[in-house]
Amino acid sequence: MPTTVTEFDTITAISTPPGEGAISIVRLSGDESLAIIKRVYRGKDLDQVASHTINYGHIIDPKTDAVVDEVMVSVMRAPKTFTREDVIEINCHGGIVATNRILQLLMSYGTRMAEPGEFTKRAFLNGRIDLTQAESVMDLIRAKTDRAMQVAVDQLDGSLTHLIKNLRQEILEVLAQVEVNIDYPEYDTDEMTTRILLEKAELVKARIGELLQTAQQGKVLREGLATAIVGRPNVGKSSLLNHLLHEDKAIVTDVAGTTRDVLEEYVNVRGVPLKLVDTAGIHDTEDKVEKIGVERSRAAITKADLILLVLNQSEPLTVEDRELITATTDKKRIIILNKTDLPNLLDLNELQTLVNADEVIQTSILTSEGVTDLEAQIAKLFFGGIENSQSTVMITNARQIGLLNQAQQSLDEVISGIAAGMPVDLVQIDMTNCWDKLGEITGDSAPDELITELFSQFCLGK
Amino acid sequence: MPTTVTEFDTITAISTPPGEGAISIVRLSGDESLAIIKRVYRGKDLDQVASHTINYGHIIDPKTDAVVDEVMVSVMRAPKTFTREDVIEINCHGGIVATNRILQLLMSYGTRMAEPGEFTKRAFLNGRIDLTQAESVMDLIRAKTDRAMQVAVDQLDGSLTHLIKNLRQEILEVLAQVEVNIDYPEYDTDEMTTRILLEKAELVKARIGELLQTAQQGKVLREGLATAIVGRPNVGKSSLLNHLLHEDKAIVTDVAGTTRDVLEEYVNVRGVPLKLVDTAGIHDTEDKVEKIGVERSRAAITKADLILLVLNQSEPLTVEDRELITATTDKKRIIILNKTDLPNLLDLNELQTLVNADEVIQTSILTSEGVTDLEAQIAKLFFGGIENSQSTVMITNARQIGLLNQAQQSLDEVISGIAAGMPVDLVQIDMTNCWDKLGEITGDSAPDELITELFSQFCLGK
Repeated sequence: MPTTVTEFDTITAISTPPGEGAISIVRLSGDESLAIIKRVYRGKDLDQVASHTINYGHIIDPKTDAVVDEVMVSVMRAPKTFTREDVIEINCHGGIVATNRILQLLMSYGTRMAEPGEFTKRAFLNGRIDLTQAESVMDLIRAKTDRAMQVAVDQLDGSLTHLIKNLRQEILEVLAQVEVNIDYPEYDTDEMTTRILLEKAELVKARIGELLQTAQQGKVLREGLATAIVGRPNVGKSSLLNHLLHEDKAIVTDVAGTTRDVLEEYVNVRGVPLKLVDTAGIHDTEDKVEKIGVERSRAAITKADLILLVLNQSEPLTVEDRELITATTDKKRIIILNKTDLPNLLDLNELQTLVNADEVIQTSILTSEGVTDLEAQIAKLFFGGIENSQSTVMITNARQIGLLNQAQQSLDEVISGIAAGMPVDLVQIDMTNCWDKLGEITGDSAPDELITELFSQFCLGK
Repeated sequence: MPTTVTEFDTITAISTPPGEGAISIVRLSGDESLAIIKRVYRGKDLDQVASHTINYGHIIDPKTDAVVDEVMVSVMRAPKTFTREDVIEINCHGGIVATNRILQLLMSYGTRMAEPGEFTKRAFLNGRIDLTQAESVMDLIRAKTDRAMQVAVDQLDGSLTHLIKNLRQEILEVLAQVEVNIDYPEYDTDEMTTRILLEKAELVKARIGELLQTAQQGKVLREGLATAIVGRPNVGKSSLLNHLLHEDKAIVTDVAGTTRDVLEEYVNVRGVPLKLVDTAGIHDTEDKVEKIGVERSRAAITKADLILLVLNQSEPLTVEDRELITATTDKKRIIILNKTDLPNLLDLNELQTLVNADEVIQTSILTSEGVTDLEAQIAKLFFGGIENSQSTVMITNARQIGLLNQAQQSLDEVISGIAAGMPVDLVQIDMTNCWDKLGEITGDSAPDELITELFSQFCLGK
């Protein structure tokens, strides 16, 4: 038997997050789904029920006849299912033991445990979705803000797919025309052929460039922007942190599975998900006059993409302040001149020699003065012009960015090849290369290893 | 409008555990469920679909027309539903943001957030299940072992309900007969009446006694048995802990929600769920000769219901060993004479003067010798005679135990009242009391506050 058969055996997994909840779902997909559920289900005759129906009953252990759980069994017959195969979903009472028992029962009657992402992989292999849609499923699950979610939903809907397919179509047309021109040289000249190649290469390159411009924001939306709050003790770091964490800005992140030691704090500032770095240190150093912890700050500064440097404008600049200003010079940063409710004793002229005026925001976090400006500044730093263009297709994912860069590189070679007077058939190869790279994004020309690698990053049960 | 109307407005909640998973479920229950879902769903006409069908579509935000998620909507019309009301379940792509957005959308179109346990409460108030079944739903979710799960499933099936209802029927019959005898004294004598009352009281008392005998085990099954491993450094506590935690005995407990600091370790020893106390201390004290940490052990001993006291039989008893033996005298304990792979230097005669022979198990955890005996001993201590009677109805819950005790007390008063020659109508009151207390167990005669209190302990979305 060919090895590909194993791709389409019947698989099962728990598809709800792990833990105690009201409902857990155990999902089956594959030809044998119905035959297997019938072994352990007592209730209606599932062969007779219509597709896409929900059926009350019990899961029993056939060996002992003992009831394992009271359940609702959803029967969804191919091809109108998530995987395009027969899919069964068992909604059980939840809880870890009962759900695992059901899973084990199913595995003892002929299914195997699904690999992470294997249900979605089948949806892809069976042609229901393409790779960008598959990736958007995971982005949707991991989205930290409404906006990140919206980008994922648009991509799930096929917006990026559509765009990429259009670009590939453009390339295909020009390649076909070049082919005709080569085959029937009497109709055309080399000059004509290279001209249409060059035009198309520049057009596609510009479009890819536009897409790549969204990548920076897309990546931030997807992964959050690592942000460090730094400053010496008693300047108001704690208050700023609390301000960000409260007022409904905190994003609850319940990281499923084993990594419960690392609890990251996310806050949502006007759609920008900030991933706060080293917040534990803030409460440690605050209100202690002895140690400034510049060393500790340095570590946070290194890890962060955005620095919120808090200064106390009711005191003169200290050596430590200056050190922190120097340490953050090369970073994207906002200098927060805090405590505007107190008299100003900080030499603003000196400060101007150290930092740019547009980096500085004056606040009194205590009285909430200037806090709106601070939030606007954060949003402006990261969304700039595209803040209001909600429907823009955004590239959010490192794989896609990498392939777009490679596609662009092939186009550069097309362009420089033509300029150097390279033969058309060599230029053609670079153009075809670009077409391939774009195809990898949607999965139309993706190698098997890539597909395996990609889906292995999914969560179990998806 | 009467206040009870609010009991039956339309409610919603996320019914899957919090966190990132493949599928999340947002559930609606109440008269307005269909009207509300129709406001935010784009797909088939849900008014036209049959009950208990699954319908593909999208959740949209009607204000912006933006797609929030691709979903499957289950339509279940009253009365054949979990709550006996119209129930809608939205299976969405999971993830925290999208799921919360759907919940918020539903709440902005006329549902309110369900209280913890409110769906199950409605199932009870609408007569689909009784209180013991409602409680078993939560027991099932929280079950730590197969056996605990089985007890919950049996109870969910109504086994305890059935038993309690039978007892109440017995009491009702005798009360009716007493009533007849009082109304028509010509047919009977006082003596006859008190005799049947006494007989019935003793019969019911015996049955309740049998049930209460299962309570100890039931409680352990449900909550786990707090177990401390104590002993001085280097006797093998760590090895014992590792042995228990490995070999597929560890029970993964993923405590949902906020209490992630307190990660309790459960192990399943032949169906007995042991909740290990202060395991962090074990690795701290092991391999350190300096500190014995008897004080620390004392704290663990106080918290535990079962002590596993480890001694090293290749060394003479030390002062510390004797202290630990004394400190655990009043506890349920197993003395583990470890390191039988090494020559015996511990004076067994002296040990016999300090502990009972049947408390002692000899092991070499290193070579796995005696470990089976240890496990058997743990199981024996807690299941004793009933280990194999898998189908026994078990009382697992403090509320039920309390009410059974109160019912038994009323019966004692019936019996002592008759012995003291009390008038039949006073004895009757105590018998009715018993009938009421049993009714509270199933919820037939439960006061409102009790019901509110009980369901508030449920998890959200159930």
